[in-house]
Amino acid sequence: MAQEDPSWKLFFEENPKPTHFDENVKLIQDVCQQAAVKKNRVALITSGGTTVPLEQNTVRFIDNFSAGTRGSASAEYFLEAGYLVIFLHRSKSLEPYSRHLIGRNIFDMIEALPDHITVGDKYKIELGVLAEKYQHYKCNLLMISFNTLADYLWLLQATAQKMQILGPLALLYLAAAVSDFYIPTSQMPCHKIQSSGGPLSLSLELVPKMLAPLVTLWAPNAFVVSFKLETNETLLETKSKESLLKYHHNVVIGNLLSSRKVYVMLVDSTSSNAEEIRLSASDLENGVEIESKIVDNLKIRHEQYYANHKTG
Amino acid sequence: MAQEDPSWKLFFEENPKPTHFDENVKLIQDVCQQAAVKKNRVALITSGGTTVPLEQNTVRFIDNFSAGTRGSASAEYFLEAGYLVIFLHRSKSLEPYSRHLIGRNIFDMIEALPDHITVGDKYKIELGVLAEKYQHYKCNLLMISFNTLADYLWLLQATAQKMQILGPLALLYLAAAVSDFYIPTSQMPCHKIQSSGGPLSLSLELVPKMLAPLVTLWAPNAFVVSFKLETNETLLETKSKESLLKYHHNVVIGNLLSSRKVYVMLVDSTSSNAEEIRLSASDLENGVEIESKIVDNLKIRHEQYYANHKTG
Repeated sequence: MAQEDPSWKLFFEENPKPTHFDENVKLIQDVCQQAAVKKNRVALITSGGTTVPLEQNTVRFIDNFSAGTRGSASAEYFLEAGYLVIFLHRSKSLEPYSRHLIGRNIFDMIEALPDHITVGDKYKIELGVLAEKYQHYKCNLLMISFNTLADYLWLLQATAQKMQILGPLALLYLAAAVSDFYIPTSQMPCHKIQSSGGPLSLSLELVPKMLAPLVTLWAPNAFVVSFKLETNETLLETKSKESLLKYHHNVVIGNLLSSRKVYVMLVDSTSSNAEEIRLSASDLENGVEIESKIVDNLKIRHEQYYANHKTG
Repeated sequence: MAQEDPSWKLFFEENPKPTHFDENVKLIQDVCQQAAVKKNRVALITSGGTTVPLEQNTVRFIDNFSAGTRGSASAEYFLEAGYLVIFLHRSKSLEPYSRHLIGRNIFDMIEALPDHITVGDKYKIELGVLAEKYQHYKCNLLMISFNTLADYLWLLQATAQKMQILGPLALLYLAAAVSDFYIPTSQMPCHKIQSSGGPLSLSLELVPKMLAPLVTLWAPNAFVVSFKLETNETLLETKSKESLLKYHHNVVIGNLLSSRKVYVMLVDSTSSNAEEIRLSASDLENGVEIESKIVDNLKIRHEQYYANHKTG
């Protein structure tokens, strides 16, 4: 008798592919093939939260807190470090470069006169610097967006598989805030849940842990970095180490909801002590972002990994 | 023995005010007082979905599908119809004018040369028109943002109360997608729910219907328009009429998730038949938005209401 499929396979059987899936996979494949020929490093950065619909005609959904700050900032630093970047992000979450304008209105920054439109003097330098960087790096940046958990997992699987051709040149930086729970399509009501039905009870299933097939099957030679977000400091190091022991990938970056912009810990399999990255008072004063230090650190680790892989 | 407080009062007792509440209420009050003196009409437009946290240190939340399309488009048409607009919107949802640029990257629209930055020729007309409108109307527009259900309800109550001074000059256009269910703070876990605990069961309570105190207590003389979104066509008219009968406000606008951009029905207490607004093929071809027709319709209804109020 055949063994039952593992839970991650069943997930893909039960949840259909997102729209534009094939076009997106083609774009990803082209980037990977060209990079493989040129021996370019490629970073897949996942960013933003995934949604979990509560109804098939979705009015309500569960979401994960994430504006995409970590992922969009990191994308800029990976580009500047010479990587090609595949930015797999939640639709409408923060994006590299334009993230710096968030919360501001572009129409406060441009001047419209009856016969003339231009950028306001006060904003010329800031917008100029950002536009220049964006225009310089955009040819190295592929942006792919998702909304739901299922969209994300389909695209993650396909991207990891297409990156296999890159071997150890591939780096996966899994910063997206992925839901741990979901409601299987078969258990979801078709229409909007009516409030006249009184209080609502929801039963959510565990999402299969995709890091397992990702590390062993989809991208076995890639350098894989995952994140562990906690709110309780006493759990952070234990949870990060557990994750590494369970999936045997390369680095777990532990961070706390309250301090994630100034402190992270990096756990790997070569040392029992976590490496800490912390912004200093002068870093903060100078507008240094912790993602620049994270990417510097990972770049060195990835170089070492690549070197070992070639000789090993 | 004193009667127990109604459920809406208990909600405000259990859920603390949002940050910056007092500053925001002061801004709202100033707008209302100045408008009352000048006899300006004021529209409160609520827009976007509310979030319902699942944890006190919130990593996960339930959200309502809404990009803020209806509210942000309507805000533009109310401004053009001569209203002062208080735009109470979900943080980072669509906003008037800038909504037209959504999904596009501003850095594709401006050109950065080493000593010069300007708007690209292809975008000069479009950005010029939008910037001009924005700059013309922004003095009539107060933007206030929210995230959670509780933030929204606190701000809704305060705004409605401050609008009382306007009597029938006030119009409330409740387009926000407000959660029907929530988890009371006292029943919420403090920290991030661990997936190691297995499948997740959630029990959600009904959110008290705030339309009742809004219509009778907070803004008894305002012209109040609410929305009813359904996914099931057969329920739409019944649900819309039920809502009107229950709360005795002025108009319910019924709409379906699938057709909301081309069709709505308006239900009021003066006629047993719903009035329909539907975009024609030529409307669609010419880029007419249904919100322009909704606002035209409501402007006339509000004028009539105001006239009746003065003579009545």
